[in-house]
Amino acid sequence: MVIPSLIQHKRDGHALQPDEWSRLIRDYTEGRVPDYQMSALLMAVVFRGLSAEELGALTDAMLASGDRLRFDQNDRLVADKHSTGGIGDKVSLLLAPMVASCGVAVPMMSGRGLGHTGGTLDKLESIPGFRTNLSLREAEAQVQRIGCAMLGQTPEIAPADKRLYALRDVTGTVESIPLISASIMSKKLAEGLNGLVLDVKTGSGAFMPETAQALELAKTMIGLGQDRGCPTVALLTAMDRPLGRSCGNALEVEEAIQGLRGEGPDDLMTVTYALGVEMLLLVGAAGDPAEARRKLQDSVSSGRALETFGRIIEAQGGDPRVVESPDLLPQANEVEVFRAGRDGVVTHIEPRRIGRAIVELGGGRRTIEDAVDPSVGFVIPVKPGDSVAEGEPLASVFARDRDDLTRAMKALDDAITIGTSATPTPLITHRVTAGGVKAF
Amino acid sequence: MVIPSLIQHKRDGHALQPDEWSRLIRDYTEGRVPDYQMSALLMAVVFRGLSAEELGALTDAMLASGDRLRFDQNDRLVADKHSTGGIGDKVSLLLAPMVASCGVAVPMMSGRGLGHTGGTLDKLESIPGFRTNLSLREAEAQVQRIGCAMLGQTPEIAPADKRLYALRDVTGTVESIPLISASIMSKKLAEGLNGLVLDVKTGSGAFMPETAQALELAKTMIGLGQDRGCPTVALLTAMDRPLGRSCGNALEVEEAIQGLRGEGPDDLMTVTYALGVEMLLLVGAAGDPAEARRKLQDSVSSGRALETFGRIIEAQGGDPRVVESPDLLPQANEVEVFRAGRDGVVTHIEPRRIGRAIVELGGGRRTIEDAVDPSVGFVIPVKPGDSVAEGEPLASVFARDRDDLTRAMKALDDAITIGTSATPTPLITHRVTAGGVKAF
Repeated sequence: MVIPSLIQHKRDGHALQPDEWSRLIRDYTEGRVPDYQMSALLMAVVFRGLSAEELGALTDAMLASGDRLRFDQNDRLVADKHSTGGIGDKVSLLLAPMVASCGVAVPMMSGRGLGHTGGTLDKLESIPGFRTNLSLREAEAQVQRIGCAMLGQTPEIAPADKRLYALRDVTGTVESIPLISASIMSKKLAEGLNGLVLDVKTGSGAFMPETAQALELAKTMIGLGQDRGCPTVALLTAMDRPLGRSCGNALEVEEAIQGLRGEGPDDLMTVTYALGVEMLLLVGAAGDPAEARRKLQDSVSSGRALETFGRIIEAQGGDPRVVESPDLLPQANEVEVFRAGRDGVVTHIEPRRIGRAIVELGGGRRTIEDAVDPSVGFVIPVKPGDSVAEGEPLASVFARDRDDLTRAMKALDDAITIGTSATPTPLITHRVTAGGVKAF
Repeated sequence: MVIPSLIQHKRDGHALQPDEWSRLIRDYTEGRVPDYQMSALLMAVVFRGLSAEELGALTDAMLASGDRLRFDQNDRLVADKHSTGGIGDKVSLLLAPMVASCGVAVPMMSGRGLGHTGGTLDKLESIPGFRTNLSLREAEAQVQRIGCAMLGQTPEIAPADKRLYALRDVTGTVESIPLISASIMSKKLAEGLNGLVLDVKTGSGAFMPETAQALELAKTMIGLGQDRGCPTVALLTAMDRPLGRSCGNALEVEEAIQGLRGEGPDDLMTVTYALGVEMLLLVGAAGDPAEARRKLQDSVSSGRALETFGRIIEAQGGDPRVVESPDLLPQANEVEVFRAGRDGVVTHIEPRRIGRAIVELGGGRRTIEDAVDPSVGFVIPVKPGDSVAEGEPLASVFARDRDDLTRAMKALDDAITIGTSATPTPLITHRVTAGGVKAF
């Protein structure tokens, strides 16, 4: 295989053959294709895209580069959710135990926060003792035992993706719908799922702010899943404002626990239930949306979902008492209330600015090596469209010290806009299936 | 400087700042920017191109990465010619001594053959003892002493180009007019010239076969030269057939010597004189084209050009007796005549096929490490448009052994087409100056 010729071929707008992709990814993973050739090829893909056949071959090759979770299919149905990431998005923390409580296994593999978006692993690790680096065999055993495991991408899963992602991150080749889709789906397909629900965020805080792009990403991932025996559905949800009230690792765990007690904020619960309904329907654990919703609501009202969360925490070395006493979570040294500077209507809460402010508070990462302070962040109870009066509390800041606090107050002042009127965008805008796109 | 951001910026169609290019090239040359980032950026440049300002900054940075030739400008005018490369193109071997004999210094830095095109250095090294790896200081001294030196790209000249070219060669990023222009001009501008003439080849054997692309390449390089105080002119010349009769290293030196004796084939001499006229005019060594041509013709008819070639050979360690006795050049073991298979008119002599056949004979390189057999090649006295009779000799093959000979006879059969009529393209089609493009 002559790599420069393959690169030229792709550069000139031709498709590579499936076996060329498969050998290329194998040779790259095994160190026989250097990074400098792969990065040039990836840049050509950014410009030229991939045909459906190429995308399938690339995804299969990435999947085949590693191991996968294996479940006894007669034993239990298996489903998962993937979000493209946003601010305050702690849906996974609620959804996994809720769905597991409905009898559907959830082997949830998540990532860490980077840049302005948080990561489920960081949130979980704010629970004292919680360990996310399960091996595949540990995860399988835990899923069999308690119906759910919440882990990071293990070294056994799609090592080609791991290497490719690290390369893309430093070569300006992240922003490509086929490359993003292959990366996500190669990992999700390794989970041995019977169904996958995608939460594709749109709006200024999303990785792909534009609806058109978000739809294309959703359709691309759905096509990949469907063709590989994993029924896949996507919801497009709003990320032009933070989801829920809390933004910051321990604060979000606390809010998730409130949600599992039936006391979560409306927007968070709406998105969580909508995704949960899709999961149950996909694997046939409910006959229709109403039944699915009843089962999920029952998992919360009965306390089973919260109990399952406690069992997950305990199984993964964390202190399960946090589900009863969230004050066992790390607490910030400094807390201050941010108040409205004028009467009016909240017109905008810019999620990217909030996300950046969390990084500035030490609660997020600039580079993947950064340590994260779990205690810091924001609680912002107001939403766009809310009327507020001058001096009314709009948010609380949780910080390590006074200096950070001052900076974070300034960030809130930037992020929260008060005007005269607001028409917030709907929380869930589209439902995308193999059959097409429908307004939600 | 955050390299991934620069790459993204270029990828998204924005121009980088001149100082960003200059730091990038410096950091790359000094090993602080890895190949995998540079290759991704180069691929983005292939798609997005470079603005005139960016191209200038890149070229200047590549030039500044190394040393340059320095001449006392009051002493002698300095000019050079660069060809984009073709089959049978031995123009440099005649032109350098001819122009030097007219009192214009020629510090000619050339390259080696690779793939189907030959290289001036390989041709010169077929002269027993000839040494092309002069240092810059040796080259300067020789130019001062005898008016001409013919050398390779020294390690002191544009090391950034050397590293970038090697990377482009293996990452599918060669075919970019701005990158090609920056590469060529960074080296030529290092020669300390008062004028530069470009021979941009067009037709099936050329690096850029299409006239439109060749014109764009010519204009881009002219713009770079003019803006940097080096008046530059280009001629577009035909490379849809070999130039001259001989193709192969020693065979081409022999033909160059014939040319310097006034016995060269018409097409070779036409191109050589046309380029020489431009060189003399550019530096003001002649007042008009007719005077320039007279001076060049006189350098040949007087024997001064041949004498200068002998002095160059002697100065660079070669055996100067070859100019009188070309049979001192390496001779092939096997020679055979190729004859016309039918009556008709030669419609086409495919230069790429001839070039590939020379590589197969051992006279060219597949990779830059290959050794070259100087003795092998072809002499093809016929030209497209010539009427031939069945059995008439069309060419001679020079090979190491009978097997190679047989293969090369087959290659000639592929390359030379005999039909009923032919209208050969003009030898020189366009003259390009800073003022614009004119039909020649």
